[in-house]
Amino acid sequence: MAYEEYLKDFLEISNITVGDTVKVTKPHIEHEGMLLEKPDYSNENTIILKLDSGYNIGIDIKDAKIEKISEGKKPQIELDPVDKKISDKKKNLSILSTGGTVASVIDYKTGAVHPAFTADDLLRATPELVDYANINAKAIFNILSENMTPEYWKKTATTIYDEINNGADGIIIAHGTDTMHYTASALSFMIDSPVPIVLTGAQRSSDRPSSDAFTNLMASVNAAKSDIAEVTICMHGTEDDSYCDLHRGTRARKMHTSRRDTFTSINMNPLARIENNKVTINDTQVKYTKRNEKELSLNTNLADKVALIKMYPGISPEIIDIYVDKNYDGIVIEGTGLGHCSDDVITSITRATSEDIPVVMTSQCLFGRTNMNVYSSGRRLLQNNVIGVGDMLPETAYTKLLWAAGQTDNVSEIYEIMKTNLKGEMDTTLSQNYFIKN
Amino acid sequence: MAYEEYLKDFLEISNITVGDTVKVTKPHIEHEGMLLEKPDYSNENTIILKLDSGYNIGIDIKDAKIEKISEGKKPQIELDPVDKKISDKKKNLSILSTGGTVASVIDYKTGAVHPAFTADDLLRATPELVDYANINAKAIFNILSENMTPEYWKKTATTIYDEINNGADGIIIAHGTDTMHYTASALSFMIDSPVPIVLTGAQRSSDRPSSDAFTNLMASVNAAKSDIAEVTICMHGTEDDSYCDLHRGTRARKMHTSRRDTFTSINMNPLARIENNKVTINDTQVKYTKRNEKELSLNTNLADKVALIKMYPGISPEIIDIYVDKNYDGIVIEGTGLGHCSDDVITSITRATSEDIPVVMTSQCLFGRTNMNVYSSGRRLLQNNVIGVGDMLPETAYTKLLWAAGQTDNVSEIYEIMKTNLKGEMDTTLSQNYFIKN
Repeated sequence: MAYEEYLKDFLEISNITVGDTVKVTKPHIEHEGMLLEKPDYSNENTIILKLDSGYNIGIDIKDAKIEKISEGKKPQIELDPVDKKISDKKKNLSILSTGGTVASVIDYKTGAVHPAFTADDLLRATPELVDYANINAKAIFNILSENMTPEYWKKTATTIYDEINNGADGIIIAHGTDTMHYTASALSFMIDSPVPIVLTGAQRSSDRPSSDAFTNLMASVNAAKSDIAEVTICMHGTEDDSYCDLHRGTRARKMHTSRRDTFTSINMNPLARIENNKVTINDTQVKYTKRNEKELSLNTNLADKVALIKMYPGISPEIIDIYVDKNYDGIVIEGTGLGHCSDDVITSITRATSEDIPVVMTSQCLFGRTNMNVYSSGRRLLQNNVIGVGDMLPETAYTKLLWAAGQTDNVSEIYEIMKTNLKGEMDTTLSQNYFIKN
Repeated sequence: MAYEEYLKDFLEISNITVGDTVKVTKPHIEHEGMLLEKPDYSNENTIILKLDSGYNIGIDIKDAKIEKISEGKKPQIELDPVDKKISDKKKNLSILSTGGTVASVIDYKTGAVHPAFTADDLLRATPELVDYANINAKAIFNILSENMTPEYWKKTATTIYDEINNGADGIIIAHGTDTMHYTASALSFMIDSPVPIVLTGAQRSSDRPSSDAFTNLMASVNAAKSDIAEVTICMHGTEDDSYCDLHRGTRARKMHTSRRDTFTSINMNPLARIENNKVTINDTQVKYTKRNEKELSLNTNLADKVALIKMYPGISPEIIDIYVDKNYDGIVIEGTGLGHCSDDVITSITRATSEDIPVVMTSQCLFGRTNMNVYSSGRRLLQNNVIGVGDMLPETAYTKLLWAAGQTDNVSEIYEIMKTNLKGEMDTTLSQNYFIKN
């Protein structure tokens, strides 16, 4: 919508149009940012600025003065072909873009950030990458990661498989941060790989001066050239650009809504730190899968429907019954403490397991591990054929149960898979004594 | 069950019975612990030991040697009356026991820990408390905290109200740790109090030498005598007994399944540290409610049914429809990132809000705050009358929405309550720049 009436006059007097950078001064406060178009829902006396921080604010112009700082201009799209500097001496890396902030541009009409760059645009924006590897960039789809689904995971896994089959020495996946850890753990179970598979993203879009996209991408190139042939997440380790952490894909979690160092390894330290183009293993005692240790293989069989349910006081046990009635293939519970739920819920869970639906217990504490032998409610769950999965994250247990129930219908076999450490997702030697505290 | 046949012989040869402390030696490994009765489900060649750590293990006795370390004996219950040393010079504190590990004993038959002590037993076990205050101990119920419900919260709140009305200068609630933070936030909204209300518990039961029950109780006595008239959680700040943290009840979360310092303040520092019977405010810039600042009042009106739903890739949007069909009073979403969910789910959420069901967005990141203006999916939610609650924890948003929807049926009024900082549950000046990292 255009600004109307009073606001229109207010802006026209100073010769200001949408896209211009302006300074708005009110008693005791001053804002500088880009004028955005008026959203449908905003108040008639409010203008919307996109601040340098990347966030939008509405400002009531009562008592306000406005001043133009600079003219807006449409972003120039560089169309020159990129010199890819192909050389036999460099490793072949595939960058697969799925969308997200790392590959996004601001919509100048609404101020919202949309996924928009293709993978080739990404490369064009960061031409330094080609000095470090032969880069093959490809957009496989372009979605915000909150719209990611198991079907997209399959497509991603299949593309990775093809790229490695075609000679890629390492894979980088550009991915939105919201669900990056779900995708990383899902890919961990779907692929055995002889080369690194590195997911990366950005918390600040690449149109912003504070963007973390470049640092994360460069570190990911180093990770993808390294000896760590696991599915990993490579993101900022601190708020500044000093280094990136490389997290095991089955052990990481987005733990802050907006910080650049949002990704955190839970129940183990990050595998490695990447600083000044150097990959350093954090703890040489921790085993990881090395380059060419595993043969390439792909298994994208996933169950159709698995539920992830968090327990809380007052939850209605009928929610479990509903999933049973809808023939779900499995249920992951985020229990309290060591892996508990209320007696009411246990009754419904017992019905689920008696109808051969696997029920897997994790802890909403996130840190530590389930132990259902300590308290009577845990023991009652064990007696009713619920299994605890130790120090496995709830999100990882969800992707793993989707995969495990995609391999077989036999509950004992599904449980056997769930209890086997396949991709470093459960290993109490790593989680023992591990905690982060304020 | 008793041990039978082969196992029975194995034990009888060494003159060992259930309750004895034994050492079991196998090639390369040695275990010492108390022999428990055989659970129904255990393998016929397996004996169960309770280790000093408090955990139980099953040991296959193939190749094993067993040796008696000491005779088992039934725990003696001390029945002498406690001298409560009542004095006008001391503050009057009420300790209300609800169950949980702080007030639990081991069941020598199964090795499981049951809530069993009364509040008076608790006092008898920790007679030092009476030197610091006039203690009035009372068991209001005796449940594991995973069985806590909003009805129990009401009963607890009402009892606290009565105790304060009857002259208590501070309240201590002994509570299981699993859901302590849910109860603390629920009580925060239900009571305005002129005196401290301190929840405490234990991660190791008081029959174990490593129990944290005593330290936590002593620190809670100090907190309940202090000037901080808020609902707080008082638990170990480290793995050793050096100090306890005092967390604001609306800002804490159990973050580790088993560590003694499991409780963590999210999005703000703990209010205070309690060390050597001294309560020290961590940051004097942080405002807190002082003793006698508020008049005592009680409001236990809660809505009947509020759902707390975590988003994940592949979640079926019909789960939202089911809650709408069941006439829920409100829905709290644990969205991804800044407060997002998939387009599919937004469609169902839009149906919920169009039927006047309040829908409140939080983040499963836990740290940081919702901001639904940045990405298109967030903006779509805002346009469809979903509100984000900033840096409020999902668990706190759940208890608050139960309370808010118990005050009025008007969605705008409910939203107004949700967006108002009532008990320190939302305050971005505290959460800004706050994060804990590995």
